[in-house]
Amino acid sequence: MKAVLITIGDEILSGNTVDTNSNFIAAELKKIGIPVVQILTVSDEIESIKRNLKSAFEMADLVITTGGLGPTKDDKTKTAFKEFFNDEIILDPETYDHLRRLFEKRNRAHLLELNKPQAEVLSKAFIFQNENGSAPCQMIQENGKIAICMPGVPFEVKPLIKHKIIPFLAEKWSLNYIVTHTISVVGIPESVLSEQIESWELALPKDISLSYLPVGNRIKLRLTAQGKNQKELELRIEEEVQKLNPLIGNHVISWNGDDIQEILKEILDEKKLTVSTAESCTGGELSKLLTSISGSSTYFLGGIIAYDYHKKIEILGVSEKTIQEKTVVSEEVAREMSLGAQKLFKTNISLSTTGVAGPNSDEFSNEIGIAFYSIRVNDFEKTTRLHLPHFERNDFVNFVSQRVLQDLVEILIRAPY
Amino acid sequence: MKAVLITIGDEILSGNTVDTNSNFIAAELKKIGIPVVQILTVSDEIESIKRNLKSAFEMADLVITTGGLGPTKDDKTKTAFKEFFNDEIILDPETYDHLRRLFEKRNRAHLLELNKPQAEVLSKAFIFQNENGSAPCQMIQENGKIAICMPGVPFEVKPLIKHKIIPFLAEKWSLNYIVTHTISVVGIPESVLSEQIESWELALPKDISLSYLPVGNRIKLRLTAQGKNQKELELRIEEEVQKLNPLIGNHVISWNGDDIQEILKEILDEKKLTVSTAESCTGGELSKLLTSISGSSTYFLGGIIAYDYHKKIEILGVSEKTIQEKTVVSEEVAREMSLGAQKLFKTNISLSTTGVAGPNSDEFSNEIGIAFYSIRVNDFEKTTRLHLPHFERNDFVNFVSQRVLQDLVEILIRAPY
Repeated sequence: MKAVLITIGDEILSGNTVDTNSNFIAAELKKIGIPVVQILTVSDEIESIKRNLKSAFEMADLVITTGGLGPTKDDKTKTAFKEFFNDEIILDPETYDHLRRLFEKRNRAHLLELNKPQAEVLSKAFIFQNENGSAPCQMIQENGKIAICMPGVPFEVKPLIKHKIIPFLAEKWSLNYIVTHTISVVGIPESVLSEQIESWELALPKDISLSYLPVGNRIKLRLTAQGKNQKELELRIEEEVQKLNPLIGNHVISWNGDDIQEILKEILDEKKLTVSTAESCTGGELSKLLTSISGSSTYFLGGIIAYDYHKKIEILGVSEKTIQEKTVVSEEVAREMSLGAQKLFKTNISLSTTGVAGPNSDEFSNEIGIAFYSIRVNDFEKTTRLHLPHFERNDFVNFVSQRVLQDLVEILIRAPY
Repeated sequence: MKAVLITIGDEILSGNTVDTNSNFIAAELKKIGIPVVQILTVSDEIESIKRNLKSAFEMADLVITTGGLGPTKDDKTKTAFKEFFNDEIILDPETYDHLRRLFEKRNRAHLLELNKPQAEVLSKAFIFQNENGSAPCQMIQENGKIAICMPGVPFEVKPLIKHKIIPFLAEKWSLNYIVTHTISVVGIPESVLSEQIESWELALPKDISLSYLPVGNRIKLRLTAQGKNQKELELRIEEEVQKLNPLIGNHVISWNGDDIQEILKEILDEKKLTVSTAESCTGGELSKLLTSISGSSTYFLGGIIAYDYHKKIEILGVSEKTIQEKTVVSEEVAREMSLGAQKLFKTNISLSTTGVAGPNSDEFSNEIGIAFYSIRVNDFEKTTRLHLPHFERNDFVNFVSQRVLQDLVEILIRAPY
């Protein structure tokens, strides 16, 4: 079984909204062995939706659309499905009842009648009720093919996919397992890495595939295999991974992790170390990355965003003299910031960032794209300078934050502290 | 001129990476009047790339691909272009020279030879040099159609698009202007709003289109028009916007803004107010949102992320008694947190959040999905409770953060403080 995902909405085509739904749905489908062979974003027009449903079914057995199911006039998915499947639209008492309960729970019973059109569904459809919004998820099965239309709001999509669609699909078909294994490598450029593992890569079994995924200065090597026997797949991948040790073992920072914050969590939990942050140019992103995974509260105690330079002095204890002499964007200030956080939060580790994200410079006229970050682990300290002049503001913030966590992982593994 | 964007990469199809490039490119193309009629993500296989180039050119005159240009074996875009255009690949001395300078600047001259294949380009292509990476951007013009292939790393894509591709396209064609105007509305459900402006919407000129964009509890109404005369388009849209005032004026929080942080910036700059934050469950996201726009340092002085509850006591001055009696996830703690931040940072406004993002509960066994936030403006204070039990962790964090800023905008506009 193969899938195509179709996002319906001029909002995405016009660049106003990033499509995050497709990413989530593809990852969930992959876990139950359904590969997504194409992701499309199409215009919110009946003809365009119908044309793309047709071409999607030429490539796949499962088509999931998101978006275009609101109660307003610019939403056309339901009509497109109706025409595509020669169906009719009927009022579904069960959906209406669900809507009534939903609106009552939110003390909005007076809005029920206005939303009644949301209880009008395709007559051939099986309905998955939506707990977070008024548009139900509808599924039509015909000639061995499945079409599912769902709303576009990400917090409505995720629970529908995870708790309703995926269990349904996994039960209905006996599906392949997909096993992936990710190794994270640092301190070696992609081209050199590729050369060092060339013979290993060429000797990989045909059904095990490899991808290179650069993330900041880290490269993730991901091995993927698909088959009926999960245990066997895991063993076979493990065998290949072991062969990498003599080739690039000294550059591997994680033998089985994905996001840097996940890799970090494993290490911090094991070593029982706590972390705090003192952010300036990253404005909260570094802390947000650290707290983006559940369980981070056991090691992340807190952080200071000292955006205004007086706050660096008042709250973090950075010396005014240092700022006057070196400006806020300096090695020295980064170092004093991390010291301040380490003391204030009483943590083993503290991380600080200071820099100019742009597009405008700061009050000291520092160069745009310059950043310093300091990492402390107990008495050990390391400050690093970055120069990223061509980066957009949010990419700069994200790159610096990723880099800090990556360096921290490296330091924790080498343990010079 | 119409465009199709093609993202090449199994990384996106497998749900490992979110495609943010298409969003950026679509937004930039829109500004110079080139509509994106379809966005596709396709597999990293030569046949798939060629097939989709073909169907893209049936819909559009401009096709931009991102991804699949790395030096490793899983990158196949260049070969697909070569075959599609019956072209050959040659070593380009100019690109090689650019690479040399790039590697020297980064003190990586020893890696130049390994990256030499990146200087091998399509013989028919015009080259836009890449300042942030080793893969150049290549453009082929044939029979009035344009194909551009560029690397997939977002911080390489953005400067290439903004500073090289867009100026080139804008100069080569005399393009239409696109004017958009966004009005933000709160305190009225989409269905009611739609009814209240129905007659206005139906009477809109044919060439002015309207979209409804719900973001948290705010709804953005966006009007879009396209034509040769920018001034005239602006005036005509302005005329339509004015007619909305008697219909929904009391619900409008911004007559011309887009992201909530931009709307907020306008208000804070005008009123000369400063802001600080005290975050718990949002873990840095609220501060990150505030600092995501340039110029935010004039009003955002800083924030505390008090993740560990002892830090709420030690740094923010929350009373231990309150925590023991009410737990950390309570109206009272939210209120004391915002008070603590207001005092610590000496700001007019302070914002606090406390809650359980899940998927696991906290040490007080509070219910997952509960959040309290407090907004202070001088002596005025307002605490709000949210209950979002079906939200994924990161959606919860984002929703709460968005909501806080929205409520702050409402408060600043009504000015009860």
